[in-house]
Order: sequence, then C-alpha cells, then structure tokens
Amino acid sequence: MYNSKAYSVASATSPFAHTTITRRDPTEQDVQIEILFCGICHSDLHQARNEWKDVMPTVYPCIPGHEIVGRVTKVGAAVTKFKPGDIAAVGCMVDSDGTCPECRAGLEQFCSNFTLTYNFPDKHLGGVTYGGYSDSIVVDQRFVLRVPANLNLAGAAPLLCAGITTYSPMRHWGVTKGKKVGVVGLGGLGHMGVKFAHAFGAHVVVFTTSPSKKDDAFRLGADEVVISRNADEMQKHAGSFDFILDAVAAEHDINAFINLLGRDGNLTMVGAPDKPLPVAVFGLIFKRRSFSGSPIGSIAETQEMLDFCGQHNITSDVEVIPIQKVDEAYERLIKSDVKYRFSIDMASLKSE
Amino acid sequence: MYNSKAYSVASATSPFAHTTITRRDPTEQDVQIEILFCGICHSDLHQARNEWKDVMPTVYPCIPGHEIVGRVTKVGAAVTKFKPGDIAAVGCMVDSDGTCPECRAGLEQFCSNFTLTYNFPDKHLGGVTYGGYSDSIVVDQRFVLRVPANLNLAGAAPLLCAGITTYSPMRHWGVTKGKKVGVVGLGGLGHMGVKFAHAFGAHVVVFTTSPSKKDDAFRLGADEVVISRNADEMQKHAGSFDFILDAVAAEHDINAFINLLGRDGNLTMVGAPDKPLPVAVFGLIFKRRSFSGSPIGSIAETQEMLDFCGQHNITSDVEVIPIQKVDEAYERLIKSDVKYRFSIDMASLKSE
Repeated sequence: MYNSKAYSVASATSPFAHTTITRRDPTEQDVQIEILFCGICHSDLHQARNEWKDVMPTVYPCIPGHEIVGRVTKVGAAVTKFKPGDIAAVGCMVDSDGTCPECRAGLEQFCSNFTLTYNFPDKHLGGVTYGGYSDSIVVDQRFVLRVPANLNLAGAAPLLCAGITTYSPMRHWGVTKGKKVGVVGLGGLGHMGVKFAHAFGAHVVVFTTSPSKKDDAFRLGADEVVISRNADEMQKHAGSFDFILDAVAAEHDINAFINLLGRDGNLTMVGAPDKPLPVAVFGLIFKRRSFSGSPIGSIAETQEMLDFCGQHNITSDVEVIPIQKVDEAYERLIKSDVKYRFSIDMASLKSE
Repeated sequence: MYNSKAYSVASATSPFAHTTITRRDPTEQDVQIEILFCGICHSDLHQARNEWKDVMPTVYPCIPGHEIVGRVTKVGAAVTKFKPGDIAAVGCMVDSDGTCPECRAGLEQFCSNFTLTYNFPDKHLGGVTYGGYSDSIVVDQRFVLRVPANLNLAGAAPLLCAGITTYSPMRHWGVTKGKKVGVVGLGGLGHMGVKFAHAFGAHVVVFTTSPSKKDDAFRLGADEVVISRNADEMQKHAGSFDFILDAVAAEHDINAFINLLGRDGNLTMVGAPDKPLPVAVFGLIFKRRSFSGSPIGSIAETQEMLDFCGQHNITSDVEVIPIQKVDEAYERLIKSDVKYRFSIDMASLKSE
C-alpha cells in the first residue's frame, strides 16, 4: 500500500478537505495512474451529500470522482495493454465479476457484482472505493481505457461519464446519418449529446427553456433550437423525431416530448427525476413509441466512444478549476452555472 | 348501392336497434362479403357510447364492429386474391392512402390517411363507415384477409383485432422460443397474448389479480401464474423478463411490472388507461428497460398472424351470441364477465 493525496467529505454537510488515503500496490493485473484531471459529475454531489441514501447510502469519508484521466506510472506483470507514460482513463466502474452472462456479453455496466469507482465495497482493501478527487488510483487493466493522443485532457475527462452516458443510448437506438434527433436540456450531458448526434450526421434539434442558450446550442452542433415552453414551436415538430435524448433531471412534461416522436421513435432518459413521470399511454400506442432509460456504457463501448472522439476531435466544454474550489463548483452546479462541465486540474493537489 | 341489415345505436345512451343501411356496389378492386361472425371489442363500446369524444367523437347512427369474418359473395373485375365462396376477414382498417412512406413500408396502421372500419369518413358514400354489426360489407381487396380453412369462424373473428394487437408487439419486440414473457390481465387481449406467447415457445407467466383465473391461465398456455397483489410473488420474478404485454386498461402500478424486466426488457401496453401512468425513471435507466405501446398490426402482419393461427390451430375463446343480445353483452363486458370474447353470430340478423 502507498499514500495518496485526496479531497474528501466527512459527512453530508461537510465541506471538502484535504486528506491522505491509502491505495493498494498494483497487483499483476493492475495499472497505477497519476490522475491529471477529474471531471465533476452531478452524481458526485448526490453521493457526497448522501442524497441517494435510500438506494446507495454514502459511507464517509467519501471521495467522489469517476471521470478520470491521467498518466500510467506503474503496471503489473500481466498488464499488456498499458505501459508507464501512457495516457489512460477510468470511468464509473473499476471491476465486475467477469463471469456472469452480462460480463460474458461484454456489458459490465449490467453486472450485478460490479464495483463502482467510489462508495462501493473495495474488494482489495476493505472499506469503500475512493474516486478520482485524488492524485493517484490503481485499477484492474480491464477497466482502464486508452485516450487518443489528440484530445485535450481536461476536456476528455468528462467523456468517461457524461460522454459515454449520451453516446451509448444513441448507438443503442440507432442514431445515424439522416436521423432526426432531439436533445432535451443543454447541460453537462446534453451538450455532449448534441456533439455526438451532430458527429453521427443526424439532424439535431435542441430543446431548452432558456432562449439565452440558443447561440451555444448552434455552436455545439444543433441544426435547430426549440424553446420548449413555446407550444406552437413544439407542435411544428409533432411526430417527426427518430430519437430524443432527455437529460433533464428535474420534473417536466415528458408527454410533450413523447408526442414529438415519429413511428417507432424512442425517447431515452439519461437524467433521473426523483419522482415518477406521468406517461400518457395513448401517446405510446399511437405510433408504437417507446420510452426508456440508459445508464453508462460497457468498457468496450467506452473505448469505442473515446476512439470516436479522437477521430472527430470531440471533448467536453469544460471550466478547469483547482481542487480547492470544488465546494464552490458544487454550488454553481446546482444553479447550472457552468459551461458545461467542471474539470479539476489535479496539479492543484500537489501544493496541499 | 344496395341495402344491408345492421344494428346501430342512435346516441351515446341508446340501446342497439335494427336498421337498414346502404353499402356501395363493389368497384373493380372491391370484395363484397356476407358477414358470418363479428367479434365485440371494447373499442366498440367506447365508440358507441362516445367515450372517446375528445379524440374521436362518434357520428350517429353508429355501427361498430371490426372483427369480421364472412363469405365472399362478389368480387370486382380487378380482384385477383378472392373469389365468391372464399372465407375472408376484415379488421380495423378498410383503406389507406397507399402512397405515404408508412404505406410504402407496408405499415398501413400508421398511415395518417387510413380509414377505420367504422366511424371514419367514408370516401365512397360520404358520411361515416359502418362496421361489422351487419350482414354485409364491401371492402377494397388490399384490406381483405384470407382465413385458414381449419379455423372455427366464430373464434377466428376476434383474431382481427384482439389477435393482431397482441401478436404484433410480440413479433416486434422479438418474442421467440426460450424468452420469458409476461402477460398482465387475462381478458380478451390477454388470453390471446397467452396463446401466442405459448405458441412462440416462450416461458409464459400470467399476472392477474384474480386467483380464480389460475386454472384458465394454465389451460390457455401459461407456465406460471402470479397474483400481482402478492408482493413476495412479484419479487421472485424481479429483473427476469424479456417482454411483458400489459393488457390492462384500468389504472395500475406499472413500475411493479417494469421492475420485473431484465436488461433491455420491454413492457408494451395494449390496454390504454385514461390517465397517465406514473413511471419511475430509475427503473428504466437501471437495466436499459423500455416502456412502449402498440396499436394493431399491418395488413401483411395480420395475414401472417392468421396463417400462424391456422398452423397452430389458434382461435379466441368466444361466447357466441345473437345480435339481439349485444346490449347485454356490453354490460357484461364492463364487468369482464366473458371468457374471453363475444362473437356475434350474424345468422341472428336474418330474422329481423
């Protein structure tokens, strides 16, 4: 074991504070990574503040972070995919059983024995896993990704969660050239959805409640922007979409968007409102529409997504912050006051 | 034009009464059919009583009936598919534009210019179309189906709506041998769903609130029956279904069923509750589940379904009634007091 610097919260109401944690020495299969950047995901905030206490109670101290990009510093004897000096990445998962039907199908994100990157039982050291708000992490090579050399690393970090969460359902539901795709909500997830849909060659319509976001939506790749509070504007698109990605975690009228789907159209939620959303069944029956959800993607698909980003030079729009500003960033996150993702420059941790 | 006997309602609150209507003489493309049996669908009742006044107001007099089986009596000069004496069937649609993308894709059920079998503008005679509670009907050959010779005709009639409505989503969502399939609600639609799922080789679980329906469910082809009010019984099936067909039009807890779906599982509604159903988004995200609806099927798929029924000797379980008992049948329908579909023997109309 060795010591690693990190930022943790001691309780649901504590601010972040510098701490020292222990990481395991790399085993045969492990890759040790010096973390360079870690994106801030809204899940980090939910977990740090124990807002998911009913389904995934937080164990303190808690060290969030699952959008990790860094440099390989050491590899185990059996590691073939990486060598010291490589740029590597880690997302939401750091392990899975590898033997269940989901794992054998290459869909580790559905393994019922996976290990999430933070706040999950740590099989090696006991306690819980500690995430990327840290200067170092040790991860089984199966869960370490390669990062294309041309990508800006601060902007690449959010690809590991916001990126794959939006890329995966678009691939799953067949977003390709010529399809009409909607993206509801222009935040951390939504802005990645726009970039991917545009890169896939789709006709991209952004739905937002904020007219002030119009210019940005076009810059990110939208072909049209609809102010979703305007019923007339909405009506013009009735029955015309192949796919809609909904990244809004607040309550909203989902039927207004379902009605924009064409025959066999699908609306996938990647935002998760707390309360159930009332769904009008006639709207689903009428054009054989479907309403679904999607979590992250598999490791193979995450690598595919990163390679796609390399080819299309796609990264997240980020505001780079020192780790000392993470509390402030959380407050701004709540107000959606970021374009469009915070990325922590882990060099700031060296001075602690 | 020629006269045809029928039963109609004069208003939302009128009983059915004998009437005489005019049908068009067969054009070149038309098939004239002597109606032998017509199933009673719950839609007939909704339409007769103007219960869909907001979306599809009823024009009176109204003659429902879209589960029609009969004998061809005359064909137009251009009709190649049928000859007098053939047994033929007509379902929910009698026309479509034939030129739109949906029609060209062979999916007339999604044509925005289709003509439903009753209460829809009649392109030939003006007024509205009159359905199958009648001794005769004239329909374009494109919308006339062949009925396999081995099928009981009274039991075959409900295949034209209850049959295709349950067959189509199972085919669309990939129900095949070895899949685990749930059917929620054992009524007119549900009992057909059980028969089809069983014939496809699926492992069939029937969900019902009525323990008294257990024996019947097994007889119809269920492998297991779950009393859906029993949370423990439900929990045993959590995360295990590939597909669930929900035929319940009353309000019910849909999340209890969505949670029974496995990864990429789909729940399709063929019942249409009046009020929106609250859907918990986490339940969809967790296993990439989808929640959808499905209307009837295309003409080609309806023929495929009828041929499948011929091969597997599948018909609806029916109670055959004379047309004079249609009011009584409607009252019993509301109480689900029928196993499992009424089929009107149109010979009873001759005495009027």
